[in-house]
Amino acid sequence: MKNSFGNNISLTIFGESHGASVGFVLDGIAPGIPVDEENIKRMLSLRRPIGDISTSRQETDEFTIQSGIFNGYTTGTPICITIPNKDVKSNDYETNANIARPSHADYTAQCKYGGFQDYRGGGHFSGRLTAALVVAGGILIPALNKKGIFIGTHIKNCGNVSDIEFTNYKADIEKLQNLAFAVLSDEKSKEMQTEIQNARAMGDSVGGTLETAIIGVEAGIGEPWFDSVEGVLSHALFSIPGVKGVEFGLGFGFANEKGSTANDSFCVNNGEIQTKTNNSGGINGGITNGMPIVFSCAFRPTPTISKPQETVDFVEKENKIVEFKGRHDPCILHRARVVVDSISALVIADLLASRYGTDWLAL
Amino acid sequence: MKNSFGNNISLTIFGESHGASVGFVLDGIAPGIPVDEENIKRMLSLRRPIGDISTSRQETDEFTIQSGIFNGYTTGTPICITIPNKDVKSNDYETNANIARPSHADYTAQCKYGGFQDYRGGGHFSGRLTAALVVAGGILIPALNKKGIFIGTHIKNCGNVSDIEFTNYKADIEKLQNLAFAVLSDEKSKEMQTEIQNARAMGDSVGGTLETAIIGVEAGIGEPWFDSVEGVLSHALFSIPGVKGVEFGLGFGFANEKGSTANDSFCVNNGEIQTKTNNSGGINGGITNGMPIVFSCAFRPTPTISKPQETVDFVEKENKIVEFKGRHDPCILHRARVVVDSISALVIADLLASRYGTDWLAL
Amino acid sequence: MKNSFGNNISLTIFGESHGASVGFVLDGIAPGIPVDEENIKRMLSLRRPIGDISTSRQETDEFTIQSGIFNGYTTGTPICITIPNKDVKSNDYETNANIARPSHADYTAQCKYGGFQDYRGGGHFSGRLTAALVVAGGILIPALNKKGIFIGTHIKNCGNVSDIEFTNYKADIEKLQNLAFAVLSDEKSKEMQTEIQNARAMGDSVGGTLETAIIGVEAGIGEPWFDSVEGVLSHALFSIPGVKGVEFGLGFGFANEKGSTANDSFCVNNGEIQTKTNNSGGINGGITNGMPIVFSCAFRPTPTISKPQETVDFVEKENKIVEFKGRHDPCILHRARVVVDSISALVIADLLASRYGTDWLAL
Amino acid sequence: MKNSFGNNISLTIFGESHGASVGFVLDGIAPGIPVDEENIKRMLSLRRPIGDISTSRQETDEFTIQSGIFNGYTTGTPICITIPNKDVKSNDYETNANIARPSHADYTAQCKYGGFQDYRGGGHFSGRLTAALVVAGGILIPALNKKGIFIGTHIKNCGNVSDIEFTNYKADIEKLQNLAFAVLSDEKSKEMQTEIQNARAMGDSVGGTLETAIIGVEAGIGEPWFDSVEGVLSHALFSIPGVKGVEFGLGFGFANEKGSTANDSFCVNNGEIQTKTNNSGGINGGITNGMPIVFSCAFRPTPTISKPQETVDFVEKENKIVEFKGRHDPCILHRARVVVDSISALVIADLLASRYGTDWLAL
Repeated sequence: MKNSFGNNISLTIFGESHGASVGFVLDGIAPGIPVDEENIKRMLSLRRPIGDISTSRQETDEFTIQSGIFNGYTTGTPICITIPNKDVKSNDYETNANIARPSHADYTAQCKYGGFQDYRGGGHFSGRLTAALVVAGGILIPALNKKGIFIGTHIKNCGNVSDIEFTNYKADIEKLQNLAFAVLSDEKSKEMQTEIQNARAMGDSVGGTLETAIIGVEAGIGEPWFDSVEGVLSHALFSIPGVKGVEFGLGFGFANEKGSTANDSFCVNNGEIQTKTNNSGGINGGITNGMPIVFSCAFRPTPTISKPQETVDFVEKENKIVEFKGRHDPCILHRARVVVDSISALVIADLLASRYGTDWLAL
Repeated sequence: MKNSFGNNISLTIFGESHGASVGFVLDGIAPGIPVDEENIKRMLSLRRPIGDISTSRQETDEFTIQSGIFNGYTTGTPICITIPNKDVKSNDYETNANIARPSHADYTAQCKYGGFQDYRGGGHFSGRLTAALVVAGGILIPALNKKGIFIGTHIKNCGNVSDIEFTNYKADIEKLQNLAFAVLSDEKSKEMQTEIQNARAMGDSVGGTLETAIIGVEAGIGEPWFDSVEGVLSHALFSIPGVKGVEFGLGFGFANEKGSTANDSFCVNNGEIQTKTNNSGGINGGITNGMPIVFSCAFRPTPTISKPQETVDFVEKENKIVEFKGRHDPCILHRARVVVDSISALVIADLLASRYGTDWLAL
Repeated sequence: MKNSFGNNISLTIFGESHGASVGFVLDGIAPGIPVDEENIKRMLSLRRPIGDISTSRQETDEFTIQSGIFNGYTTGTPICITIPNKDVKSNDYETNANIARPSHADYTAQCKYGGFQDYRGGGHFSGRLTAALVVAGGILIPALNKKGIFIGTHIKNCGNVSDIEFTNYKADIEKLQNLAFAVLSDEKSKEMQTEIQNARAMGDSVGGTLETAIIGVEAGIGEPWFDSVEGVLSHALFSIPGVKGVEFGLGFGFANEKGSTANDSFCVNNGEIQTKTNNSGGINGGITNGMPIVFSCAFRPTPTISKPQETVDFVEKENKIVEFKGRHDPCILHRARVVVDSISALVIADLLASRYGTDWLAL
Repeated sequence: MKNSFGNNISLTIFGESHGASVGFVLDGIAPGIPVDEENIKRMLSLRRPIGDISTSRQETDEFTIQSGIFNGYTTGTPICITIPNKDVKSNDYETNANIARPSHADYTAQCKYGGFQDYRGGGHFSGRLTAALVVAGGILIPALNKKGIFIGTHIKNCGNVSDIEFTNYKADIEKLQNLAFAVLSDEKSKEMQTEIQNARAMGDSVGGTLETAIIGVEAGIGEPWFDSVEGVLSHALFSIPGVKGVEFGLGFGFANEKGSTANDSFCVNNGEIQTKTNNSGGINGGITNGMPIVFSCAFRPTPTISKPQETVDFVEKENKIVEFKGRHDPCILHRARVVVDSISALVIADLLASRYGTDWLAL
């Protein structure tokens, strides 16, 4: 199941940037979960390009429910939703079919698919498919919210600017839901947007990190080997175009710690067991410990830039210079965060379904 | 399949630190692959505690072939190998059955298994199970070597010391095979060992990062969504006790780059397409591009330390002080690297089997 | 993955009888396989209701390629195809939403989905979804044909009439491809159709068996435990609505045999190893032996009949009499055989992909 | 996962007839399920050869718990149990390594494993591996019993003798538990045993059918497509050596019915919805309807017989006569029924875990 993810709740995605549609099949969803199309649209709007810090490709992101939803509720059968592709300018791409855009998947697609790939607009590798992930998230996240589980992602670093840290998870997550540019500090938000505008002006792009917190997941979820919370989350997160690193809690920061400074002491607080610090990011031995699950994803700068770059024609095997003039994003972070939220929701719902069954989500 | 990993070639592990044995079932291995028990022993010896920078628990790591190997070759049927547990001192642990060692899995095990877990020596969470992974690696790695695929891991950072970078992958990987303490620079190796001895003297432990290179994997392996090389590798790697971060190529370093500095230009070199830099760590769009696959794993400092720590009795829900006197490792990096190699071999063999079939490995 | 089947080549189906569409995602298909839409239409026409021996619901079975096919070839990425639902008469059903049609899935759907199921026209349980299977078969079967593998199914028994046996597999399979009513003997074909017309006139329905032969599959395919050819084929075949039994070779006939009469002697024939008889249906120990794979599926009579039947209102928990007046099939066998062919193609292609990789199908 | 079965509760088996051991890993079992070793031994004794109607190979079937059980309870981690091989007479087999026993898997094993298979005693294809299935059943069946689910299998046909039908499922299942030769009618039991003795005296073997009833499974379990109860059960059942057909309810008998005679009317009985007949074998649309799940498995006569048979040397590609003198079973039915019970328990437990989670089994 190559393009599928999840055990009890599983998502299969399909589509090419310039084909008829992108979409997904979401299976294993309990019957009786309300599907709020307005909420899905709201979430899609968070992924949509904004102003001068995004591509000018306008995606209306209208979606069609093909199956699995009836009278506003999930039926319990597979949910297929398609998002038709519109505002497609294939001509931009066709002349460059054999030119590998640096750090894009054009060349690897050629190696894998042998020339049969739909190369237009990145084809199946297009970030456009993340719209499908967001629609799935638009069904799953409200269901998790009802269970007391909340997910929020902010831009931790962008260029050389860093956001403040989470202070009150619940309130911060709530705040982030309504921000088109998800930064906790308004000041840092502006600075980051300036960074992006500057990069854009240079025909360049910037990278950064997203940090996500998931609260309300009880202790005891996940598996010690292979299907650890870290393993399953990272597996899914690395699907998001541009993600090149995933860390939990202190993550790579652990390298400079000692056991005595890095360990999270346990304590009893109002009769509940907690840890005093959360360096472990809510996970010990692959299993949730009841503290907020906290992780960061490193995103590479968008590889599509306007500057001339050295590359090859992979059919002719000749060196070439490519100067990309199509629409593109100077930064993907603000658009990606709702994708991270969505894919996290899939993973968490699936891990819980493993322990409590697929019915659980609707109870 | 919670304790299993892999699609066409799959590994299921089992065992508890103080049970009868730890072991694995490796399925999907082509018939006719030679199994060199001496090589397996050699690899196990790389995982074994050494001198004053490891625990004093001595593991002979003798293993018993239960099935799937006949006359020195794989039969094509599932390979089960068990490693009996010896030199077990359960009494050390029994008095502390309800005390959560900070940043260990004692508490999460209790939450997940409700008191039925075998708590002795970390039970199923014990690093001891990685011996099983190494035995599996001892079968897979030579088979991959025959295909021109080589895997090597060095300690990139340990405490505050950093190793030099890979310069000649092939030669460096070869050198690492024979090092009990896998550091490319002899000078840095000594410095790191001193760091570990110092930590040990303080009753403390150190963290660090391992960096792995895999060479010889052709371009075109992996999947664009979900089963990206990054996704599958990270999923497996996060199973290794202590891993809290995984990054590919520049990884978190991408956050401070621009597209123009981070992108890997393509070029034609002796008729072959390559990239000039390898910031992407050999993977574009989730798929190998023919360059070395390079990734790093962040390891937390071993959570078991001799210093007194605040914690709880999770049954009585009372605060406690724990002062751990058992045998333990002040650093796990040098023992973990052969585990990283082994698990990487599993992932790579499986990804290739997906494209070329399970027979491929023996051809 | 509940609504999915297959390991390396996998099919996920979705849809409800009266929803927007039924369809599928077919994943793991090698790039470069030609997709002949005319052939798909031809196969769909074999599933379509015919004359007075079928329902009068007319399904045009137009289909929309959403993804995975480009310029007439598979791209290697997931293929999603939808078949929009038309000629839908929901009103027929709505008044009976809580009445369990005997031996239909109305009641079990209620138990499983708790009232949220799309009950119209059988919803997700509708035979309509088999159209999706046939479209998938329309892609897979020509690819297998190129590999020398051919699949044919005839009506072995219908009511009290039995067809003649396969004599020349190759020629018989070819003949069957062009028959709307797939019976080898023209005489028996007429008798069977008369049986069906008689049942229809009585407001009743008939059952029967389909027998399938698959030729050209080499020896050595399948697994000894669990993923035996029999196990995987039966798993898939029991998804076809109405199938209540699956047997291979002599099947239930073995019960009356002795070892000496049932065993298939081996012999060398023109340097090739064959069996003299094929009581085993081409499979020993779960693995193909190179002889034709032969199996039969028992179909229950279509449960929808016009006669009054005793049943219940499962919400009110009251006894009821149901007299079904909607369109329905007095026999499903002739429509089902192309579904059997299609699902068999999926299984065989997947088993081969397991051994030779997903690339194999396009080589 | 070739030698594995199950989604949430999964079984992986391994071993060869003359290797060190056969065994299994059972994963996904809730913590806290009592493991009664005496019950496992009792079940193994039902599989053991008896008197003059079985092989003279004596298997003590002692087993070793390698992992996953602690203080008499499941821990929630993977359970590995091995059954060491003893009383092994490999010499019987070695001279015949290249001779294909008719209707055995020797030839298909050669085609699949290319000469690397462990050919001694059937190797991985040996019925001996079913002992592992029975041990797994010995853990699962008592757990299901606690949930009110009971499973019983009787020999329905053996040679030309047929047993009476189930009349009182609960009582009949209870009776069968204690019978070494599982026939409901004492008279028919003797007749069948005479048939087997006669076959043995002739150097021959007999086939037959086993019929199984599972009671206490609530309505609403299973999936409409692919993971139908019939599909999943048949998939697992066809792994049992010798099974060549599986049917549910009337099964192949449906072929001669009409809808009006085959349909199961629903009725309200003491406020509960039931069907008046159970031709559907407790399953509609792939999903349980609350009635007993009833199915039959057709077993071929044991292929190992003493009579001379025509066959080939598959390495030399020469015709040969084989006259098998080793120990063998003239009938496998009475030994197989506890295997059918065990594998059915696995499937039912897994289907329920899918809906209610893995914790459910211990609640």
